[in-house]
Amino acid sequence: MDLYFDNAATTRLSEAALKAYIDTEREFFANPSSIHREGMKAHKELERLRGSMASLLSVPSSSLFFTSGATESIAAVFSSLLMQDPGKVIISAIEHEAVSSWLRVLEAHGWKTARLKAKGGFVRREDLEAELTPDTKLVAIMAVNNVTGAIEDIKGLEEAVREYEARGRRRIFFFSDSVQALGKIPYDIAGLGIDGASFSAHKINGPRGIGMLYLRRPEAFSALSSAGGQERGKRGGTENLPAIAGFDAALGEWLSRAEDNRKRIQTLSLKIRHTLEQLGFQLFSPEDHASPYIISFASPLPSEVYTRMLSDKGIAVSSGSACSNNSKGEGERILLAMGFRSEAARRAVRISLSNGSDEEGVDALLKAIKEIGNG
Amino acid sequence: MDLYFDNAATTRLSEAALKAYIDTEREFFANPSSIHREGMKAHKELERLRGSMASLLSVPSSSLFFTSGATESIAAVFSSLLMQDPGKVIISAIEHEAVSSWLRVLEAHGWKTARLKAKGGFVRREDLEAELTPDTKLVAIMAVNNVTGAIEDIKGLEEAVREYEARGRRRIFFFSDSVQALGKIPYDIAGLGIDGASFSAHKINGPRGIGMLYLRRPEAFSALSSAGGQERGKRGGTENLPAIAGFDAALGEWLSRAEDNRKRIQTLSLKIRHTLEQLGFQLFSPEDHASPYIISFASPLPSEVYTRMLSDKGIAVSSGSACSNNSKGEGERILLAMGFRSEAARRAVRISLSNGSDEEGVDALLKAIKEIGNG
Repeated sequence: MDLYFDNAATTRLSEAALKAYIDTEREFFANPSSIHREGMKAHKELERLRGSMASLLSVPSSSLFFTSGATESIAAVFSSLLMQDPGKVIISAIEHEAVSSWLRVLEAHGWKTARLKAKGGFVRREDLEAELTPDTKLVAIMAVNNVTGAIEDIKGLEEAVREYEARGRRRIFFFSDSVQALGKIPYDIAGLGIDGASFSAHKINGPRGIGMLYLRRPEAFSALSSAGGQERGKRGGTENLPAIAGFDAALGEWLSRAEDNRKRIQTLSLKIRHTLEQLGFQLFSPEDHASPYIISFASPLPSEVYTRMLSDKGIAVSSGSACSNNSKGEGERILLAMGFRSEAARRAVRISLSNGSDEEGVDALLKAIKEIGNG
Repeated sequence: MDLYFDNAATTRLSEAALKAYIDTEREFFANPSSIHREGMKAHKELERLRGSMASLLSVPSSSLFFTSGATESIAAVFSSLLMQDPGKVIISAIEHEAVSSWLRVLEAHGWKTARLKAKGGFVRREDLEAELTPDTKLVAIMAVNNVTGAIEDIKGLEEAVREYEARGRRRIFFFSDSVQALGKIPYDIAGLGIDGASFSAHKINGPRGIGMLYLRRPEAFSALSSAGGQERGKRGGTENLPAIAGFDAALGEWLSRAEDNRKRIQTLSLKIRHTLEQLGFQLFSPEDHASPYIISFASPLPSEVYTRMLSDKGIAVSSGSACSNNSKGEGERILLAMGFRSEAARRAVRISLSNGSDEEGVDALLKAIKEIGNG
């Protein structure tokens, strides 16, 4: 019975991922950049792993770059703009702080910025179209929102950008932070036609400290600094081979049973939604076009109070308004941008599932929620 | 018998570090930013580990920030300049590419830059003094050079900067990339009075993908982007707790026997130097003021040819001219800045030791070097 329901924050490292980490550390300990035999062996393994992940995601190997996590993948894209003439950047107002925090930096460098509201959780195509200008250089819309699980219409939004481009304007980089999408919803990067995406291993039972940047046209992308030249100049620093192996193993596990797991998680998710609705709690997570792994609702008490009450019963959920200790009010900001009332947003609680979630655990969670009742 | 002599590139993960990694992953799996019980437990462990490392380095806990490695620690410092009005940056011409690559970025943003030569391996105080100007904002001199092991006179160089400051100019940030110093030479950060330093775990048998940034006055430092607000706004991204635990374990091991190890490595180092000199090979590594862990010399053949010949005998050394596959000619650039002739620099080979190096291994290395002779 697993009473951990904060899997959108982080998941446990799987045994397979840990084994891959340890085996790779022992077998390929050298620096993949070294030109001796051990180094070349490590380099070959790095490229084998890149190929394996590329094959899991049905993208070319050359489009994947390993980073220390999604935050760094996002930073690579946004910081690269600082080497360009200022233009305009459009993001959704419900992006993770790892994205939204960059607007302040860009504004200080003379960039124009726009934040698209997302009524009910979804960015609307017409809102994006209204903001596109000839000097727009980057559009960033997350694939799945981390607070509510809302699945954005990336295909439609990307099409809007391409249609605008086709009307004679210059290229716009369409970026999609895909941390909560990987493994958790049907997600076809190549089919979406996006230019860049960020991924994190530790949200799918992989190691912490490892992530990935997808670049559709890597040859057109210049990192702010190439540092030591690793990852073909896109990301400096000694490659974290054991963590990459752990990421590959975790992704392999998630994708091998993705369909079955989603069905099972969908059933658990519906059960949770049903109970919350019976108790009269407002749901922030949309009914349709949402990841089954995330259910956010307005608890009867301030988020942190409610979170602590469940914590005292041994149950871990996220305070949906604070989202984290480091960014107070972040969740609230996002729910407000979705059009929810501030008074309800302050009571937001997020339940997030993983493939390790089971019915017994969910029943214990729902029992606790019923016991607390209206506080 | 260990025939791996490329420890300046990376070292093997120690058993203690691996155990700390695994134990911490299992015991503290939650996100330290989550506010439930498991999250608070992880947060507490994060701060315990920070305290432990601070105590090992005799610095305040509040001065240490975990990053994904030295490259990112360096990037945090240099990219932060992009939020300031342009001024001047002075670095040594023998810095690692993770530092030197930033000058191009800063120059594009209107910064003036200076690269100090380092005759024989050492940056001279008078050369630094000649470059200091009222608009100088950052000076970066590495503690130990990664190609030759030369130990820079950080104390003297820092004093020059402070004396200049005292003459009524504004504050200058003195940064020292300390990757090859940590554990390997007597190194007292606080005593040096430097403002910032970068460290990496995998150079001292810790995990890859984890590093540290030291900031003497963190309150005066603003990161380019705070991202998710972790590490008190200095470094975003979910904290890599297991890797931090591995770093702490590795550093603890290195520092607990630092003195004894240095003596032992010094003996091995002298033995290597002696043989190389007997063979008539030019040594790039200085005799005094050098880390015993690094010995660079001019082999009788082009670096890569010689490296491969040793590799074919199962011995791993670094091609001192290339330094890595990703940055061709980097080692050569550094040796030229030290005043060595291009013709000799192209034959550079680096032997780098670790505490796992033993006499038997060194003897096998020297036997192979003698066998190859003059090629």
